[in-house]
Amino acid sequence: MTLKTPQQYIDDIRKMKIDLYMFGEKVENYVDHPIVRPSVNSMAMTYKLAMDPEHEDIMTAMSNLTGQKVNRFTHLHQSTDDLVKKIKMQRLLGQKTGCCFQRCVGMDAFNAVYNTTFEIDAKHGTKYHERFVEFLKYVQDNDLAVDGCMTDSRGDRSKSPGEQPDPDAYVHVVDRSKDGITVRGCKMHQTGLINSHEILVMPNNSLKDYEKEWAVSFAVPLDTPGIVFIYGRQSCDTRKLEKGSIDVGNQYFGGQEVMAIFNDVFVPWERVFMDGETDFSTMLVERFAAYHRQSYGGCKVGVGDALIGATQAIADYNGVARASHIKDKIVEMCHLNESLYSCGIACSAEGRKTASGNYLVDILLANICKQNVTRFPYEIARLAQDVAGGILVTMPSEKDFTHAQIGPMIKKYFIGKSDISAEKRQRMLRLIENLTMGTAAVGYLTESMHGAGSPQAQRIMISRLINLTHRKNLAEKLSGIQENKEVDWQ
Amino acid sequence: MTLKTPQQYIDDIRKMKIDLYMFGEKVENYVDHPIVRPSVNSMAMTYKLAMDPEHEDIMTAMSNLTGQKVNRFTHLHQSTDDLVKKIKMQRLLGQKTGCCFQRCVGMDAFNAVYNTTFEIDAKHGTKYHERFVEFLKYVQDNDLAVDGCMTDSRGDRSKSPGEQPDPDAYVHVVDRSKDGITVRGCKMHQTGLINSHEILVMPNNSLKDYEKEWAVSFAVPLDTPGIVFIYGRQSCDTRKLEKGSIDVGNQYFGGQEVMAIFNDVFVPWERVFMDGETDFSTMLVERFAAYHRQSYGGCKVGVGDALIGATQAIADYNGVARASHIKDKIVEMCHLNESLYSCGIACSAEGRKTASGNYLVDILLANICKQNVTRFPYEIARLAQDVAGGILVTMPSEKDFTHAQIGPMIKKYFIGKSDISAEKRQRMLRLIENLTMGTAAVGYLTESMHGAGSPQAQRIMISRLINLTHRKNLAEKLSGIQENKEVDWQ
Amino acid sequence: MTLKTPQQYIDDIRKMKIDLYMFGEKVENYVDHPIVRPSVNSMAMTYKLAMDPEHEDIMTAMSNLTGQKVNRFTHLHQSTDDLVKKIKMQRLLGQKTGCCFQRCVGMDAFNAVYNTTFEIDAKHGTKYHERFVEFLKYVQDNDLAVDGCMTDSRGDRSKSPGEQPDPDAYVHVVDRSKDGITVRGCKMHQTGLINSHEILVMPNNSLKDYEKEWAVSFAVPLDTPGIVFIYGRQSCDTRKLEKGSIDVGNQYFGGQEVMAIFNDVFVPWERVFMDGETDFSTMLVERFAAYHRQSYGGCKVGVGDALIGATQAIADYNGVARASHIKDKIVEMCHLNESLYSCGIACSAEGRKTASGNYLVDILLANICKQNVTRFPYEIARLAQDVAGGILVTMPSEKDFTHAQIGPMIKKYFIGKSDISAEKRQRMLRLIENLTMGTAAVGYLTESMHGAGSPQAQRIMISRLINLTHRKNLAEKLSGIQENKEVDWQ
Amino acid sequence: MTLKTPQQYIDDIRKMKIDLYMFGEKVENYVDHPIVRPSVNSMAMTYKLAMDPEHEDIMTAMSNLTGQKVNRFTHLHQSTDDLVKKIKMQRLLGQKTGCCFQRCVGMDAFNAVYNTTFEIDAKHGTKYHERFVEFLKYVQDNDLAVDGCMTDSRGDRSKSPGEQPDPDAYVHVVDRSKDGITVRGCKMHQTGLINSHEILVMPNNSLKDYEKEWAVSFAVPLDTPGIVFIYGRQSCDTRKLEKGSIDVGNQYFGGQEVMAIFNDVFVPWERVFMDGETDFSTMLVERFAAYHRQSYGGCKVGVGDALIGATQAIADYNGVARASHIKDKIVEMCHLNESLYSCGIACSAEGRKTASGNYLVDILLANICKQNVTRFPYEIARLAQDVAGGILVTMPSEKDFTHAQIGPMIKKYFIGKSDISAEKRQRMLRLIENLTMGTAAVGYLTESMHGAGSPQAQRIMISRLINLTHRKNLAEKLSGIQENKEVDWQ
Repeated sequence: MTLKTPQQYIDDIRKMKIDLYMFGEKVENYVDHPIVRPSVNSMAMTYKLAMDPEHEDIMTAMSNLTGQKVNRFTHLHQSTDDLVKKIKMQRLLGQKTGCCFQRCVGMDAFNAVYNTTFEIDAKHGTKYHERFVEFLKYVQDNDLAVDGCMTDSRGDRSKSPGEQPDPDAYVHVVDRSKDGITVRGCKMHQTGLINSHEILVMPNNSLKDYEKEWAVSFAVPLDTPGIVFIYGRQSCDTRKLEKGSIDVGNQYFGGQEVMAIFNDVFVPWERVFMDGETDFSTMLVERFAAYHRQSYGGCKVGVGDALIGATQAIADYNGVARASHIKDKIVEMCHLNESLYSCGIACSAEGRKTASGNYLVDILLANICKQNVTRFPYEIARLAQDVAGGILVTMPSEKDFTHAQIGPMIKKYFIGKSDISAEKRQRMLRLIENLTMGTAAVGYLTESMHGAGSPQAQRIMISRLINLTHRKNLAEKLSGIQENKEVDWQ
Repeated sequence: MTLKTPQQYIDDIRKMKIDLYMFGEKVENYVDHPIVRPSVNSMAMTYKLAMDPEHEDIMTAMSNLTGQKVNRFTHLHQSTDDLVKKIKMQRLLGQKTGCCFQRCVGMDAFNAVYNTTFEIDAKHGTKYHERFVEFLKYVQDNDLAVDGCMTDSRGDRSKSPGEQPDPDAYVHVVDRSKDGITVRGCKMHQTGLINSHEILVMPNNSLKDYEKEWAVSFAVPLDTPGIVFIYGRQSCDTRKLEKGSIDVGNQYFGGQEVMAIFNDVFVPWERVFMDGETDFSTMLVERFAAYHRQSYGGCKVGVGDALIGATQAIADYNGVARASHIKDKIVEMCHLNESLYSCGIACSAEGRKTASGNYLVDILLANICKQNVTRFPYEIARLAQDVAGGILVTMPSEKDFTHAQIGPMIKKYFIGKSDISAEKRQRMLRLIENLTMGTAAVGYLTESMHGAGSPQAQRIMISRLINLTHRKNLAEKLSGIQENKEVDWQ
Repeated sequence: MTLKTPQQYIDDIRKMKIDLYMFGEKVENYVDHPIVRPSVNSMAMTYKLAMDPEHEDIMTAMSNLTGQKVNRFTHLHQSTDDLVKKIKMQRLLGQKTGCCFQRCVGMDAFNAVYNTTFEIDAKHGTKYHERFVEFLKYVQDNDLAVDGCMTDSRGDRSKSPGEQPDPDAYVHVVDRSKDGITVRGCKMHQTGLINSHEILVMPNNSLKDYEKEWAVSFAVPLDTPGIVFIYGRQSCDTRKLEKGSIDVGNQYFGGQEVMAIFNDVFVPWERVFMDGETDFSTMLVERFAAYHRQSYGGCKVGVGDALIGATQAIADYNGVARASHIKDKIVEMCHLNESLYSCGIACSAEGRKTASGNYLVDILLANICKQNVTRFPYEIARLAQDVAGGILVTMPSEKDFTHAQIGPMIKKYFIGKSDISAEKRQRMLRLIENLTMGTAAVGYLTESMHGAGSPQAQRIMISRLINLTHRKNLAEKLSGIQENKEVDWQ
Repeated sequence: MTLKTPQQYIDDIRKMKIDLYMFGEKVENYVDHPIVRPSVNSMAMTYKLAMDPEHEDIMTAMSNLTGQKVNRFTHLHQSTDDLVKKIKMQRLLGQKTGCCFQRCVGMDAFNAVYNTTFEIDAKHGTKYHERFVEFLKYVQDNDLAVDGCMTDSRGDRSKSPGEQPDPDAYVHVVDRSKDGITVRGCKMHQTGLINSHEILVMPNNSLKDYEKEWAVSFAVPLDTPGIVFIYGRQSCDTRKLEKGSIDVGNQYFGGQEVMAIFNDVFVPWERVFMDGETDFSTMLVERFAAYHRQSYGGCKVGVGDALIGATQAIADYNGVARASHIKDKIVEMCHLNESLYSCGIACSAEGRKTASGNYLVDILLANICKQNVTRFPYEIARLAQDVAGGILVTMPSEKDFTHAQIGPMIKKYFIGKSDISAEKRQRMLRLIENLTMGTAAVGYLTESMHGAGSPQAQRIMISRLINLTHRKNLAEKLSGIQENKEVDWQ
């Protein structure tokens, strides 16, 4: 059986001994750390739903490598239908967790490394693809969570990796031996990293011929010696340390961003998937980015569903749900959210088969998708705050509500429609705060902006992929500048 | 052979003897009327491209009724792939004509009437579907252009058809005999009507039980006695009457909007596809609207391509194409245009099989698509005007440019980059004027707003189709208001 | 001397003995509480700048009541120039504090109560105005901070005060004696309330004739017996409790929102400024709202300046400030911010003298101003996050950076341009986080949405104040529907 | 008496013998040409309203040169109050004409040339200011309409005037004699040029030291020999040639754009206001641009009022004015329009006295104003089309409505609410078409984009005038990067 239970997954992670720091202190049992645990839960949800018969069709797939049913997060897309189901799976997870559930990066990396290594081997006669297939079988057989690591620290942005004063600004090979390679550098903004069994590293950008040391891709277990992890702060993160279940907004689930420093980490050759092929770094980066830009058309839509639901709920609780302007704002939120979903579906449905056999999204449309994700969630969040009311940011703390003396006084003045308890309003407002300003806003807003590449990165891709010459020709024909034989009907 | 040549099509239309008025005068040979002809050419283009091997795959299909290759405009969608190809066909036509090519309404009506009559018959034991199939075989065999007619004149908008002071405000049955029915009323905003062989009439909206006379669908040839046609005016329409080929903007192609008054028109029973089944008027209207809202995610995108091309061209001619703000504006135009396309693709890819066997788009996403079409083309047009420069609206007329004395003076001052002739700039600016203010703006802007239903109609459908209760439940679980068993991993 | 030093102000507040709760605990020395102190500092800044000769012209004014120089926050506007200077003062304070500095509400209440009581007395022969003038002289002479209290808890929003199941849903008179009145109820969302010497209460909305008990305005010292205060939570509030000066974002300044419960509070007659004049509740509410909607065209612009500065700084530190898209985004931020400022200036410059002699803003334009404030700061914040980069939400904590072992590792990878320290980037990113997601976002975003009335409140006022009949007449003349004699030149 | 009647003005213009071409033909009596006449009427309206006691305060002013009451269009602004009244006058004219009334350019040129020549003389000891004052007294005494001419044909945009292959790409001095100068070149996009008595020419842009021949400003009567005028085409211009009063949309008023070619035109010295002072070309251009960017915050708002009125009217006629989405769209139109007005007011109220004594607007805010004008009218127009309905672009022609046979049929189907005639709907729809796609759209949309400088020109000015260093300092203080002594209260 290749599907793990959520509990098995959590047990796996609990066994990891890693060098992790948070708030200036070393963290030992991070799985049960109250700041980390909600993010573990989110990842665990990717295991749980895969076992749910209701969601089996979109959560699992038949592996082309092993012939077994696998969690779709470890699957190589075999059709556009698979690409579409990926989006639906992500939307479902976003709905169920209300935050970033972290397992997409690995899935997107699998697919990009798979088809790129195939093309590297075809050109260079290397054996990366074969090695990668072995690695991926291992992942599928054991239902592993894997983090795809791409973004380097990057030093001076105006210089390429080989020109940096500090060569470590990008992860690179510092030594090679008959057993493997040794790498150094730092990967930043790593989503769900310490909730993963394995790390799959990729280069960050296009490379020049001589920058071979930076053209490196490999996988290592999370607990490989030499990696130092530092947990990233999030808005309102320490609310998770407070007692109580309300002010935290979402007591169950959360995201996770980690910085990983590779201090001369050894990687055996069977885990090296690229080493020096600078001519393929662009392909790998663009394909990974395209898959990941597609992803945002699923996951953020799911979170958007949760935020729309919260907005509808608070409107109901406040007794204003029938006001025409409220209804119209909620329609607008839905419209924007479904527009994002449409973009996620479109780049999937328009995908194509690669030389390796797996399917790649339509790269142009995936960039269109992500570009919209850098805009619409902000407007959806703004509308949610509009509907929620100012109480969103002036409400007393949970502890005040339960205080023996003042609690009843506060509650007296929090009664709106008579059948709605003060606590219901509290809980829903805190969820909206969480999604628009708190820990989940990190994923829903700022990560929507920068994850899978900042807006300008998409614009550059769009300008590269749009054929303006073709369009100019259309116009020159219609205007009569170029001869237009098309209306010569004979 | 079921595919007509464009010339055969034009010859067909030329034979029509209809009661047509324009500018207060009866028009006899309307096919060769300079105001009408460009719209005939647009429709002819749907014939021409179907014969082009390069476009065969998207322009034609195998009929499920006859087993023959037919023009896709007469096809019943047999798969989501067919729905996607429909969008691609429409984008292609929009690119080639730079305007509304008019044949979509019929295609959308075919598919909606086909699957709705199937369900009427299933419930009521009628024979509409069989009749309709016969009609459609005739259409396919003869490669006919058919206009779908839905929008009535509607009188007082606050009243339903049966409550109107004038019952003719909506097309209705005024008589029935053993041979057929007689209908009266007026259909407005009929796109490409007089460029069609046949007219397929549908009811306009939901009907109450007693409003049986208004629940009527039928087809008649264009030249059926009793129909009066009045040609609609468009911005800059009379430029087509001027000599010269420049100021008209697009000398080849144009759209067409016609008002059709049915003065007691007789329809034989074999052409009646609904007569009194008020319980199916909503289904027919919503399905037709959904197909047609999908359509806008193809055709307007194609016109957008032409406008983007014109904008790139004028930027080149003006020597400003490398300015970063110009490039960024063109990227934005492309981004918006591809966002519309994504919506068109998404509602197609997510389509589903109906009881009758043909495919229906995802209705929610089709409404999302159209809602965006009521916005983005306006912004694309605004950006085009930004890039084009003020000369767009201050340029002398074509005749001034060719005047013996002042022509050379004007041209001297119209030289920008030395290798670009004044005429090139003239032509491209006039095309942009045509698309953003002139005859083509009618189709690209105002029709994008109101065609297939005004924006509020889509918002009503969105609010109806979005399951807010489901989303509210998601939020209530995440906030802890409803019990959340999902994180109980055991 | 009527101007207090900031230290004198702080000493005043420190003397207050009030019944304050926060996080379920009673707070005694709240002035030095780390969560409260930054908000005290903001208020103190209104005192400090008034003593600075550089800002004397905009920070102070000559009192029309006492002939003395007073802090402009206690001044009655004597001209449109005074109204414009108010805006400039608020922009300055926003720039200096980067948050809400809280003293505006009192100033706006003074001016509204002043001119409304004048009109009440003129109609009803009451003496409220005289009493209020005495109160205001006392405020000016002692340079007091006063909070204007308007928003009630409001219970069921669909019912007016007199119809509520619980009459206390709106503050109202529960008893009258020869010495004064006794009031009960709750005022919510009170900005800077416990940083004030006095509280000036006003009714919340239009009242029906019989709702006399709710038509009440009065002033009491902060430490009047019977008032219970509960401190409102803000996103990231507890970062102020952490050691260190970086992660808090803005270690100096902050806003404050407090809930105040009036448990049968006694008010002597000389402090009662309205008691039962339901016919003037609308005027008082609309005028206060207008002044306060004007205010947002100053204060939020100042905070916007700080955010723009932070964005420019991080762009510089990241070495991307010369990229054309970065420059363009910063221009856009400035454009939006100055558009808000223009609205603040316009409603001020178009102000008019009231019957009482002080000046009122143009109410329509003040509503336009506030409506834009519910939109543009969100877009400015979005652009700031765009420029800042994803590191905004993934950065390790301050303590990690200073950790003996991992601190140097982290810093190594935070070096961008070589002359910029990791700490500089840290500090600037935390400030942007503070302004776009943290404690200051409460004021800059959500309060911009709801403070001084939610967006729909402004739309209702706009629709009421715009003369659509006049505009319709213009159109009917131009279209020839109404006779147009205006082109009869003779 | 310095105020002319409209008829006197028209008589003046009728006397002009100029070399004018339109549609490739020489036009003799252009005042009575149906395409030109509506634009003459617009200009005449500036005369008519000045004589109307109701509008005297904003339409006239006391001249600082002559001590006489003059039309404000010829006035030098003596205060910020004058600047504000200018905006109100422009809004009034926009309301009354529904289009561009053309006289602003001259007013803006007067004020810019007045204060710039003062500063030229102060530096260079020249006598331009004195000459210009004489010219302006003549203008005021005779109540002349004067067109300010700035925009050159500009050839290759990447080259400055002195680098052009053709030196005539910018108007320049080709000869000097003891009597005066001779100039050559072409001024494009000249608003209302042939409705003016005089032409006031200014240089187009910043100039290098050696480009002295292009640093030229002067005034000549319209009928000065050597100038060739070519009338610019507008969308739907030839509807004015049709019989009938409806389809033209606005039968009374229109705008005008003309190209003027200066074929070696002689200018006597007393009419030369700059000749070679390249160091002042930037000042003159920026000041004129600032005044003119302010203007758009008045005139376009007035046209917006007319369009809002038309939208309200058609909503009434269609019987949908009470639908909440219709009301909300009209509120949004008003909100955007008043936002523009606020910008117009703000840059006026924040104006300052120049060395010459007249007042200059706040240049930054004037650019903010214009930048918004490049956006909001497009959205207002889009909303107008939304409310108007699709009939806006499908309606039969006026002649069809009056046709003996089909007219009654058409009218039967144009009855909406029973008390509204078909003609009323026709007229209002044609006015909206005129304003959003027709001749008036030229002024309301495209000219809003490009008049007084294209959007990017404003962005460049904004980036130049915003002090980002100051803002960066604010942020560095708040973040603790720079020492912040401001919270040291002692």
